[in-house]
Amino acid sequence: MMELCQILGTELPLIQAPMAGVQGSRLAIAVSNTGALGSLPAAMLSASDLDQSLARLSEVTDKPVNINFFCHDPPAEDSVATANWHTHLEPYYREYGIEAGPSTGGRAPFSAELADIVCLYRPAVVSFHFGLPDEQLLEPVRATGARIISSATTVAEAQWLEARGVDAIIAQGIEAGGHRGMFLSSDACRDAPSQIGTLALVPQVVAAVKVPVIAAGGIADAAGVAAAMQLGASGVQIGTSFLCCPEADTSQVHRDSLADPHTPTVLTNVFSGRPARGIVNRAVRELGPISPLAPAFPLAGNAIQPLRKAAESRGNGDFTPLWSGQNRSGCRNCPAAEIVATLAAGFQS
Amino acid sequence: MMELCQILGTELPLIQAPMAGVQGSRLAIAVSNTGALGSLPAAMLSASDLDQSLARLSEVTDKPVNINFFCHDPPAEDSVATANWHTHLEPYYREYGIEAGPSTGGRAPFSAELADIVCLYRPAVVSFHFGLPDEQLLEPVRATGARIISSATTVAEAQWLEARGVDAIIAQGIEAGGHRGMFLSSDACRDAPSQIGTLALVPQVVAAVKVPVIAAGGIADAAGVAAAMQLGASGVQIGTSFLCCPEADTSQVHRDSLADPHTPTVLTNVFSGRPARGIVNRAVRELGPISPLAPAFPLAGNAIQPLRKAAESRGNGDFTPLWSGQNRSGCRNCPAAEIVATLAAGFQS
Repeated sequence: MMELCQILGTELPLIQAPMAGVQGSRLAIAVSNTGALGSLPAAMLSASDLDQSLARLSEVTDKPVNINFFCHDPPAEDSVATANWHTHLEPYYREYGIEAGPSTGGRAPFSAELADIVCLYRPAVVSFHFGLPDEQLLEPVRATGARIISSATTVAEAQWLEARGVDAIIAQGIEAGGHRGMFLSSDACRDAPSQIGTLALVPQVVAAVKVPVIAAGGIADAAGVAAAMQLGASGVQIGTSFLCCPEADTSQVHRDSLADPHTPTVLTNVFSGRPARGIVNRAVRELGPISPLAPAFPLAGNAIQPLRKAAESRGNGDFTPLWSGQNRSGCRNCPAAEIVATLAAGFQS
Repeated sequence: MMELCQILGTELPLIQAPMAGVQGSRLAIAVSNTGALGSLPAAMLSASDLDQSLARLSEVTDKPVNINFFCHDPPAEDSVATANWHTHLEPYYREYGIEAGPSTGGRAPFSAELADIVCLYRPAVVSFHFGLPDEQLLEPVRATGARIISSATTVAEAQWLEARGVDAIIAQGIEAGGHRGMFLSSDACRDAPSQIGTLALVPQVVAAVKVPVIAAGGIADAAGVAAAMQLGASGVQIGTSFLCCPEADTSQVHRDSLADPHTPTVLTNVFSGRPARGIVNRAVRELGPISPLAPAFPLAGNAIQPLRKAAESRGNGDFTPLWSGQNRSGCRNCPAAEIVATLAAGFQS
């Protein structure tokens, strides 16, 4: 545990999970200022957005912050898959009286342009989802002194990451909200059902690697933190519990959905093309949870985006990705510092 | 923890999970003699088999033992579904040169006949899977003084069980091997993907009910036991770790499959009609993991049984249900008492 704090430069071995689309630098700053590690998700930021966010971070805090990137291989455009997906969604476009226009945004992988910006601002920690970028992209980041971490969903993925020199590994159990970090699977949707629960994954990863292991998935209170540490973790990464904080940018329909602790969550590909855990809503029920028609990540999301906006403008979250882990009992509408304080008690027990 | 020991009449709040088809009274006796609670799975026993097993148990041990029953509603025979399933399996029958003859065995629910036998032998604990039997069947068992326990896979199932007066609730996390205990779902195969990991499920069940909660799923060593207790569990139920003990009846192909700790497991319905966790083998890969053609539980299994026998006679487990949880790191070919001793250390930490 102390070892992980030294690596991260923090007082607490607690990482606020980067949650693209629902938070920005405000939450990262609030968490880092407590002594835990706040995270800025960069997967949905343009280069200029990233530049502005990092500039703001370095202005307002001298605490370590984690910048998180996706590092998937962007798929080739597939006009047939896109057309089929649009046809599949056509009844919903009609219902809302909207066009399936092109959507801006989406998720871009780590790139030379983004690496240049990172090297300019030199964040303390850089984390990746879906493995690691190519060595020629990673090396300049590592050379700044940034600590490199990434997520593993299997023992094989953890061993792959360790062999490539990461400083710590996040063992992402099946309970975790948002995208599964799976990267050694040739078909993540096919293999998602064999993903492993945190209680089973963490000790097996700890036994297989020498670098510190950070437990993620299903942890929502001090008892969960203490349990993760019992399993041999050196720290924890927690996202869902921060979703209702005022410093998060979580939409109102999303906040409302989190208030009911027992609506099921499921791994679904309908919002992006890759399996990600969210609360079951109309889109998941009627289109998924896993749709063979969803185009490759991240293309599936572009077609859903106009439906999401139209539905939210009517006050419902039928097409909103309601990202959530399997334990929402820690969600409170209170400052992130209070969430951190509640969780931090688990390191003492 | 002490409270659960008083309820179970044991020295340790540790239950050996009943595993129908891979163990009988030998394992139950070995475990109960250590001070933990051994379990006899009765789901695949005829009335006369049960009678003999209970007679043997009462002869050789005066320690408490748990007798486990399934309590599903047996489905109506469905000749169309059966014929379609046979047609689906036909290429395999041809490959092995066997007939899809009727198969004896299978899984019978708790019944008046079985209740009479239980009342005769008065076991200390009776546990159920898939909810509880009708009150007129349950009441005579309870009247013998037997403690009644059952499994919950959601908070709602735990509340349902508590309202019906169970003495303790097993919170069965998604990591657990064998059949999911789900019973409030109208379609277990459809709802299986939203089942919850142990680390997320246990604290939410503990918060929702007053009776003691027993954590199950993914626990394989003392650290796992200690983690479960940190989550608020009053005890643990562990199955997979006992599968390679000499007192278990696990087949050689099944033991061999357990030796590789990292072959994925998945929830599959191809062996019985209901989702159950086993190691991915040819049957799961080619027919499932979830097949819409599998007849209702437990009918799907009858058609697989001849293939299993034929494949095992050739020394392979291609059609064997290779039941396993997601953490096989505790499997050792050593007496059950040694497995118990290893796990019991987790109650001290």
